[in-house]
Amino acid sequence: MSKLLIIGTVAFDAIETPFGKTDKILGGAGTYIGLSASNFKNVDTGLVSIVGNDFPQEHFDLLEKKGINTEGIEVVKDGKTFFWSGKYHTNMNKRDTLVTELNVLEHFNPVVPEKYKNAEIVMLGNLHPLVQNEGLEQLHQKPKMVVLDTMNFWMDIALEDLKMLLKKVDVITINDEEAQQLSGEHSLVKAAKIIHQMGPKYVVIKKGEHGALLFHEGKIFSAPALPLEEVFDPTGAGDTFAGGFTGYLAQQNDLSFDTVKNAVIWGSNLASFTVEKFGVERIAEVTEAEVLERLENFKDLTKFSL
Amino acid sequence: MSKLLIIGTVAFDAIETPFGKTDKILGGAGTYIGLSASNFKNVDTGLVSIVGNDFPQEHFDLLEKKGINTEGIEVVKDGKTFFWSGKYHTNMNKRDTLVTELNVLEHFNPVVPEKYKNAEIVMLGNLHPLVQNEGLEQLHQKPKMVVLDTMNFWMDIALEDLKMLLKKVDVITINDEEAQQLSGEHSLVKAAKIIHQMGPKYVVIKKGEHGALLFHEGKIFSAPALPLEEVFDPTGAGDTFAGGFTGYLAQQNDLSFDTVKNAVIWGSNLASFTVEKFGVERIAEVTEAEVLERLENFKDLTKFSL
Repeated sequence: MSKLLIIGTVAFDAIETPFGKTDKILGGAGTYIGLSASNFKNVDTGLVSIVGNDFPQEHFDLLEKKGINTEGIEVVKDGKTFFWSGKYHTNMNKRDTLVTELNVLEHFNPVVPEKYKNAEIVMLGNLHPLVQNEGLEQLHQKPKMVVLDTMNFWMDIALEDLKMLLKKVDVITINDEEAQQLSGEHSLVKAAKIIHQMGPKYVVIKKGEHGALLFHEGKIFSAPALPLEEVFDPTGAGDTFAGGFTGYLAQQNDLSFDTVKNAVIWGSNLASFTVEKFGVERIAEVTEAEVLERLENFKDLTKFSL
Repeated sequence: MSKLLIIGTVAFDAIETPFGKTDKILGGAGTYIGLSASNFKNVDTGLVSIVGNDFPQEHFDLLEKKGINTEGIEVVKDGKTFFWSGKYHTNMNKRDTLVTELNVLEHFNPVVPEKYKNAEIVMLGNLHPLVQNEGLEQLHQKPKMVVLDTMNFWMDIALEDLKMLLKKVDVITINDEEAQQLSGEHSLVKAAKIIHQMGPKYVVIKKGEHGALLFHEGKIFSAPALPLEEVFDPTGAGDTFAGGFTGYLAQQNDLSFDTVKNAVIWGSNLASFTVEKFGVERIAEVTEAEVLERLENFKDLTKFSL
């Protein structure tokens, strides 16, 4: 059984969209990634994170029930869990951050459990590049694939650390604006070329409702997003994508371009569920039958017979 | 041999992009549509339009050389050809119109040549809906397929005329913002449903660099745009799409959903050439080998093996 190591935040979120608002609910990149990856059988998933003593047992129970090993989630006895609050505008493409309380995240030193130090696939969720690197450095051997997610914030304040880390990763997943910022190029084709030169041999550019582009050795794969009647809450869509992407890769034996293409489709498939309800509600309850049915929708969506 | 009737503008354009600027060059929706459709063999294409006496013979020669019947292009002896000038911003997604001189277009009463009054496929390029309707009304019989292109301007000033016309068309091609304006819905899935109710059984929503969506009887097809290193000049991309779309349809015997999907791919394929150079330069010179090679790129771009 392949091992998938996830390093990422476990958090409380409070979300406001045109459809309503939530109290403090379960959130965090690591949470979405883990729940999404839990849809793949025969993958041993370990999550490395940090929470405070305000983090309820029921959330641990949910993760464990989904087969996610939580041994690597440090509980800080006198600390509070990372809290983020945001509000989405009408068109859902823009959001304002209302509150960011780093709390225990401010002093997060990831400790990878011994069992996951030989993980085949490593997913580095959005964190300071030096924290991501600290996790990566603890591994006993080079994983088959290291996937990095990051954001514009780290490009603004820790670009050199990010560039150092990029040399060690196989895949980067970022959105279109971030790809443009990181590369200094508007054209995504040119941007991907420059990012390849920074290290990652696979560049995944996420375009939200417009799908995702995968770049590898001069080849391009374009995956659609499933057109939805309503996006209820986009929070965690990118992380759910990353969980589907790495969960699928962990389940496969070969890591060819064709396999990575399929991983992009699986990431897109699972992300399409997350946005249907607030927070992790939908991805935590989705059934195998539902994800397989939607996979057929993805095939129908792009298939043509020329 | 199937007949394709195109009603659309033939014009002079002056274009400025970050890469340079042009003098008055050949432009107009009808021109792009015709040149694009001319890539399909065994299609008899007639173009209905209007120009002034300043319109040079060499442009007529180009159209005729491409097999486009120009009998329906009225030449107004003491008139000047429609002129448009625009400037694109750095990211190419926005443009400012600098000059619009309607000239002969102000009194355009399309006259469909007898030969094309039984055309199987009719492409109504972007014009006032009453002008489009005037062309359509001259046909002897209901065409197999009537395709309408329009824009936000007509929704602003002639919405009721547009809605009247929509009842008579089979396909509408519009961009995402226009679909939202026409339907009053942000979600493109919801927008397409509402537009279906206005008449067209096929709704094509063009998303520029993000490709196009085709909606039909509850089914959706997503076509990518070819990711390009550089978009040199986006002028005419949507019209080239429409020409490829209708040219392909005119060449086919059946007009099933699968055939219309292929038409979307062919439209996208040809549009990807137009943006590589200023104006019609690239679409007027593209070879069969080039379009067939790029068709393979489109297949590779979307194919996956799940």
